[in-house]
Amino acid sequence: MPAEYRLADLAAPLGGELIGDGEVAIRAVASLHSARSGDLAFLSEARHRAALDATGASAVIVAPADRDATTLPRIVCADPYLGFARASALLRPPERVVAGIHPQAVVDAAARVAPSARIDAAAVVDAGAAIGERAWIGAGCWLGPGVHIGAGTRLYAGVRIYGGCELGERVIVHCGAVIGADGFGFANDRGAWVKIPQIGRVRIGNDVEIGANTAIDRGALDDTVIEDGVKLDNLVQIGHNCRIGAHTAVAGCAGIAGSTTIGRHCMIGGAAMIVGHIGIADRVVVAGGSGVRKSITEPGAYVSGFPAVPDREWRRQVALVHGLDRMNDRLRRLERGHAAGESDD
Amino acid sequence: MPAEYRLADLAAPLGGELIGDGEVAIRAVASLHSARSGDLAFLSEARHRAALDATGASAVIVAPADRDATTLPRIVCADPYLGFARASALLRPPERVVAGIHPQAVVDAAARVAPSARIDAAAVVDAGAAIGERAWIGAGCWLGPGVHIGAGTRLYAGVRIYGGCELGERVIVHCGAVIGADGFGFANDRGAWVKIPQIGRVRIGNDVEIGANTAIDRGALDDTVIEDGVKLDNLVQIGHNCRIGAHTAVAGCAGIAGSTTIGRHCMIGGAAMIVGHIGIADRVVVAGGSGVRKSITEPGAYVSGFPAVPDREWRRQVALVHGLDRMNDRLRRLERGHAAGESDD
Amino acid sequence: MPAEYRLADLAAPLGGELIGDGEVAIRAVASLHSARSGDLAFLSEARHRAALDATGASAVIVAPADRDATTLPRIVCADPYLGFARASALLRPPERVVAGIHPQAVVDAAARVAPSARIDAAAVVDAGAAIGERAWIGAGCWLGPGVHIGAGTRLYAGVRIYGGCELGERVIVHCGAVIGADGFGFANDRGAWVKIPQIGRVRIGNDVEIGANTAIDRGALDDTVIEDGVKLDNLVQIGHNCRIGAHTAVAGCAGIAGSTTIGRHCMIGGAAMIVGHIGIADRVVVAGGSGVRKSITEPGAYVSGFPAVPDREWRRQVALVHGLDRMNDRLRRLERGHAAGESDD
Repeated sequence: MPAEYRLADLAAPLGGELIGDGEVAIRAVASLHSARSGDLAFLSEARHRAALDATGASAVIVAPADRDATTLPRIVCADPYLGFARASALLRPPERVVAGIHPQAVVDAAARVAPSARIDAAAVVDAGAAIGERAWIGAGCWLGPGVHIGAGTRLYAGVRIYGGCELGERVIVHCGAVIGADGFGFANDRGAWVKIPQIGRVRIGNDVEIGANTAIDRGALDDTVIEDGVKLDNLVQIGHNCRIGAHTAVAGCAGIAGSTTIGRHCMIGGAAMIVGHIGIADRVVVAGGSGVRKSITEPGAYVSGFPAVPDREWRRQVALVHGLDRMNDRLRRLERGHAAGESDD
Repeated sequence: MPAEYRLADLAAPLGGELIGDGEVAIRAVASLHSARSGDLAFLSEARHRAALDATGASAVIVAPADRDATTLPRIVCADPYLGFARASALLRPPERVVAGIHPQAVVDAAARVAPSARIDAAAVVDAGAAIGERAWIGAGCWLGPGVHIGAGTRLYAGVRIYGGCELGERVIVHCGAVIGADGFGFANDRGAWVKIPQIGRVRIGNDVEIGANTAIDRGALDDTVIEDGVKLDNLVQIGHNCRIGAHTAVAGCAGIAGSTTIGRHCMIGGAAMIVGHIGIADRVVVAGGSGVRKSITEPGAYVSGFPAVPDREWRRQVALVHGLDRMNDRLRRLERGHAAGESDD
Repeated sequence: MPAEYRLADLAAPLGGELIGDGEVAIRAVASLHSARSGDLAFLSEARHRAALDATGASAVIVAPADRDATTLPRIVCADPYLGFARASALLRPPERVVAGIHPQAVVDAAARVAPSARIDAAAVVDAGAAIGERAWIGAGCWLGPGVHIGAGTRLYAGVRIYGGCELGERVIVHCGAVIGADGFGFANDRGAWVKIPQIGRVRIGNDVEIGANTAIDRGALDDTVIEDGVKLDNLVQIGHNCRIGAHTAVAGCAGIAGSTTIGRHCMIGGAAMIVGHIGIADRVVVAGGSGVRKSITEPGAYVSGFPAVPDREWRRQVALVHGLDRMNDRLRRLERGHAAGESDD
C-alpha cells in the first residue's frame, strides 16, 4: 500500500528545492534518529542538529538556514514540518476502505448505507441513519436514529453518536468519543433539579478530527456547531450550544462550558478551562492550563496560572498573596507618613 | 409521540398565570429565535428581550417583570426557566420503552430481566445481574456479575458497570460512563506498588444523571455512594469511597479524589479539583476551575485561580508574585526607617 | 474461590509479628468499621483509633506504635497498609481465567490466541493480533491489527487498542481506556491544519495498571513508552511520544502533553497539567492541580495553584495581584524619598 517516490519527485509537491541526488528512492518517513535507508526525515529545530549528523535517513527536509548543514540529499522548505506532513500524505495514502457490512454488525433495515462504506463487527446503526460513500464505521460504534455520516469519514471503534447528529466529510473520530449526549441543563425546583430537554443536535463540518474519549454535547434547543477543519484532542469537553470556529485546535483535557463561541484559527491549550456564555475572538491562543472567565475580544496570547515550584517556596507564595491586603495597608501607612516603625509579617 | 396542549391547560402545571388567548395549540418547546407556529418559547434574561419581539413562537413564558413585554399569549412564571422545564416534560414525555432483548444482545441465563425492560444489540449482561421494569440497556453496554439496575433507568450505549454495583430508579447514564472500576489504591513496597483490593461497590440513588465518559470508582473496602438526585456532567472523575450528597450537581471535567464527602445541594463547577479525604458542607458552590485543598465547613461560594490575561501581563504578574518576598523585605526596611534610597526590580 | 488462613500463617508473608491467638480463622479483609467475624482489618492512621475499639474484626494489623492499642489478635507491621495489601492478595487470589472464546466474540482467523486465554462476547480482534496465556479480553473490546497482549493481562470491557501497540504481562486496563489513538500532530498550512502521520506505537511494560477512560496516544514517528509498574488512574491523558518511567503513579484527570519524559518513582497528582517537550527527574512529586511548565531536574515536591477561598476574599486577592505593579511603583517612590503622601488603591 505505501508508495515509493524519487526524491526529485517530492520537491514540487513539498514546495521545496532539491539539493543533491534526486534519484534516491524514498519509501517512508521517519524521525532523524530512527530513520534507515529509504526513509525521509526532517530537521525543524536547531537543537536536533546533532541527530542530523548521525541519521541513517536517505534524505532529509531542512529549513533554508540549514541548507548546508548536511551533505545528504535534501529538500529545502520554508517550513520543514509542513513539508514533512505533505511528504507523509504522499507516502502513506489513507488506507483504502474495503466496502461491506460485517455479518455481526447490526444495521437497521431503515438505515441507508452507501455501497462503498464499511461497517465493522458489533457496530449498531439505528433507523434513519445515513452513511456516506467510503465512510468506515469501526467495531462497536453506535449511531442513533437519523445520524448522518459524510463521505470518507472514519469512526474508529466504540464511537457513539446520539440521534439526529450530523458529521461532514473526511471527519476522523477516535475511539470512545461521544457526540450528542444531553447537555447539562437543569432548572432548580426548591432544591431538586428538573431536567431541561436537550433537543438540539451536534453539527460537525468537514475535515474535523475528534480525539479519543472526547465529549461534545447536543444543544438544548438549538445546535452545537463544530465548523470545518477544527481539531479536538483527547478527553476534551464541549458543552451544549457551543460553536467552535473553523480551523481552531483544542488540546487534550480542555473544557469549554455551554453556549460559548470560539472564533476561527484559535489554539486552546491542554487542560484550559473556558466558562460558559462568553465569546472568544478569532486567532486567540490560550495557554495550557489557563482559566478563561470572560470574553476575549482581541487576537493574541492569553495565560493564567502560576508555574509549579518546590512546595516550601509555594507555601511562602501563598502566604504572601494571602497577606497582600496587610502589605497594602502597611504601604499606605508609610505613604501617610505614619511609618510607625512596627514590623508586620 | 409528542403531545399537544392548549396554552390554558399549561398554566396550572407550570404554576403560572395565563395572559392572552388560552386556546393557542402548543406542540413543542423552542428557543425564541428558532420558534415557529405551535412552539412555546421562554424569556429568562433581560438581554434576550430583542429576540422576544422577533420570535415566531405561538406563546411564551415570561417573568413577572416582563409580563407586559409582549402581546403574545403568555404564561407569567416566577421562574420562567423552571416553567419551561415543566412544559418540556409535558410536551416531550420520556420515550416509551419497547420491551425486549435484541437477538444480538448476550444475556447470561442467570441474569434477571424484567419483562418490560429493553436490551439493545451487542449489550452483554453477566450472571446475577438484575434489570428492573422499563429499564433500557443501550447497545454495547456491559453489566458485570450481580449489577442491579432500578426501574425506569436508562443506560445509553456503551455504559460499563462493574460487578456488584447498584443503580436506583429513573437514573440516566450517558454513553461511555464507567461505574465501579477499581479505585486508585496502592501500597508502596520499596518502590514498587502493591495493589490494594477494591472490594467495595458503587451505590447510586434514584433520579441521578451521569454524563458521557464520566468515571465513578468502586470503594476500596466500603462503598462509593451517589445519593438521590445528583447530576454529574461529562468527563467527571469520582474517586473511591466518595459520598456525593443528594441534589448536588458537578459540572464537566471536575475531579473529586478518594474518600471525600460532598454535602447536599452543592454545585461544583467545571474542571474544579477537590482533593481526597476532606469534607464539603451542604450548599457549597465551588467555581469552575477552582482547587479545593481543605475541608469547607460553611455554605457559600468558593473560588481559586487567576483569570487569563494577555501573556505579557501574565509574565509581569508571575514575576511580581515571585518577587513578593523581596517587596516584603523592602517594605520592612522602610518601616524600620532604613529607607536606603536603593531601588529594587 | 476466596481462601481461608490461620492468623498465625499470615504473619510471615506480611513480614509482621503475631500477638495474641494465632488460631483465629481469617477469610476476608475489611475496614475497621464494616468488619465482622472472620475479617482482618487494619489501622494505619491514629485518627481511626476509635474505630479500632468498636471493630467487629477477628484480628487487625497495626503499626509498632499501636501494638498495645487493642486486645484483639493482631499482626504488628512496620507499614500496616502494605501488610494489608499483602493479606488481601493472599485472601483474594486473582480470579481464575476460564479459557475460551465466546461464540459472539469476533476473532480474525489470522490472530493468535493462547489456549488458556479468554475472550468475551462482542469483543473484536483483528488480524495479526496475539493474545498471551491466561489473558482476559473483556466484552466489547477492540484489538487492532498486530496488537500484542502479554500473559496474564486483563482488559476489562470496552478497552480499545489501535494497531501495532504492545502490552506486557499482568497489565490491568479498565473499561473505556483507549491506547494508541493518533497523537495530536498537525502542521499549519496558511491557516488550515495538515495532519502529521502518527506511525509510532504505544509500548506498555509489565505490571502496569491503566484507569477507566484514560487515553494514551501512539507516537508520531517513534513510540510512546509506559515502563514497568506504572499506575495510571482514570481519565488521564498521555500525549504522543511521552515516556513514563517505571513505578511512577499518575492520579485521575492529569494530562501530560506530548514528548515529555517523566522519571521513575514519580507521583503526579490528580488534575495536574504537564506541558510538552520537558523532562521530569526521578522521584518528583507533583501536587494535585499543579501546572508544570518547565523541566524539573531535582527530586522533591512541587506545587502550584492557590487554594479556593470565599469568593469575596478571592475578588480582593485577584484585585491585589492585578495591582502589584502599582504597589511596586509606590514602594519605589517611597524608597526614593518621594513619599508623596498620596494614597493609591
